[in-house]
Amino acid sequence: MNLIILTADDYLNDNTVVLRDRRHQHLKQVLKRTTGETVQVGLRDGLMGEGTLISQSTEETQLQVVLTQAPPPPLPITLLLALPRPRMLARTLEHVTALGVKKLVLMQTARVEKSYWQSPELRPEKINQHLLQGLEQARDTRWPSIQQVQRFKPFVEDELPTISKGSRCLVAHPGMPTACPYALEEPVTLAIGPEGGFVPFEIEALQKQGFEGIHLGPRILRVETAVTALLSKLF
Amino acid sequence: MNLIILTADDYLNDNTVVLRDRRHQHLKQVLKRTTGETVQVGLRDGLMGEGTLISQSTEETQLQVVLTQAPPPPLPITLLLALPRPRMLARTLEHVTALGVKKLVLMQTARVEKSYWQSPELRPEKINQHLLQGLEQARDTRWPSIQQVQRFKPFVEDELPTISKGSRCLVAHPGMPTACPYALEEPVTLAIGPEGGFVPFEIEALQKQGFEGIHLGPRILRVETAVTALLSKLF
Repeated sequence: MNLIILTADDYLNDNTVVLRDRRHQHLKQVLKRTTGETVQVGLRDGLMGEGTLISQSTEETQLQVVLTQAPPPPLPITLLLALPRPRMLARTLEHVTALGVKKLVLMQTARVEKSYWQSPELRPEKINQHLLQGLEQARDTRWPSIQQVQRFKPFVEDELPTISKGSRCLVAHPGMPTACPYALEEPVTLAIGPEGGFVPFEIEALQKQGFEGIHLGPRILRVETAVTALLSKLF
Repeated sequence: MNLIILTADDYLNDNTVVLRDRRHQHLKQVLKRTTGETVQVGLRDGLMGEGTLISQSTEETQLQVVLTQAPPPPLPITLLLALPRPRMLARTLEHVTALGVKKLVLMQTARVEKSYWQSPELRPEKINQHLLQGLEQARDTRWPSIQQVQRFKPFVEDELPTISKGSRCLVAHPGMPTACPYALEEPVTLAIGPEGGFVPFEIEALQKQGFEGIHLGPRILRVETAVTALLSKLF
């Protein structure tokens, strides 16, 4: 936890917050902050700054906070990701949040097992926990938005043109002729398939919407490694 | 397991192998290959190709193998990595192996807890298991070499000049003035610190050996994410 993320509910008054949950425990037991010491804090979807510990009991910690600093810039990307298997989803959500993705679409594709959509990992409280951990890790306050898409074709044909408008559209898929480009300065919409890849129909549907195929070389990477590799090359 | 990795011990004769361990189980239970079907195979540190299933019992699978293809090219890098905490080490070994790192040095630094060196994760059989999983994932046969360095200063002063000779030397550290470069075509020696970073003395010692400081931006990434991000930008 490199940043304590605050919400409006934590405020006692204009510049004092009271924490009673895992943030209190973390300050007390891991960071071992005592009265007068400071810690980095940020308001969810708002500014970041410093909190000075003004009182602490076994039950709660009170901080006086001064927020002056903007969170780090988001990556200018919309990430369309075939729903990974549940254990991989958890880690992937943390990675992409830490890396600065703010718009994530989790999609059903032909090679995604339908049962994944029933996983407890897709419950809002579990997803939010991984997003929070990603933000706390990276020191960021802007909450990512996540859309879940269970019907690929109508999504790609009807919704994707609006979502991807004005961006460079890329689909990462083994065997595509072009290598992933580096250090882009334009907004990107990036589609990444499941383990086993997209099926030909899906690639064609994306290409019809202007998506350009790119590859990551001859090595087959796990989804979580491939996502980090692609985002790191692109930006 | 995208590649079944063979060793000399598996051979019955010039082109027939017999598998009795987890590879046999994987062929039978996960891939469900039957007689006449093929699977991708590779000889440890050697060529890759196809194996045709010629017989299978509950105990063993026999494959006729033809190896003709070179494994994917390694990344031209020597990676010096402050020893991560044990759970992170396991995943990091798989990531870097899958990405093509062949020379890895695990180092003690001031902010590495000394107890990490006693972890069961550092036993050769555990390390080899993660390297094998990385190679099986990425479809590669070249085994990475791992050096363990418990004394930072004599290593950097006495051994590192020979190791890094002829390569571009980089140290990734938050707050350095230069951003990580993209798509290098030269060999690289890259040093990555522990959670909490290198201490000033360590940075100075590396800079004295010609290491150039680079950063990954304002976000604080976990070691496993940072390693993948750095390797993906550099190559």
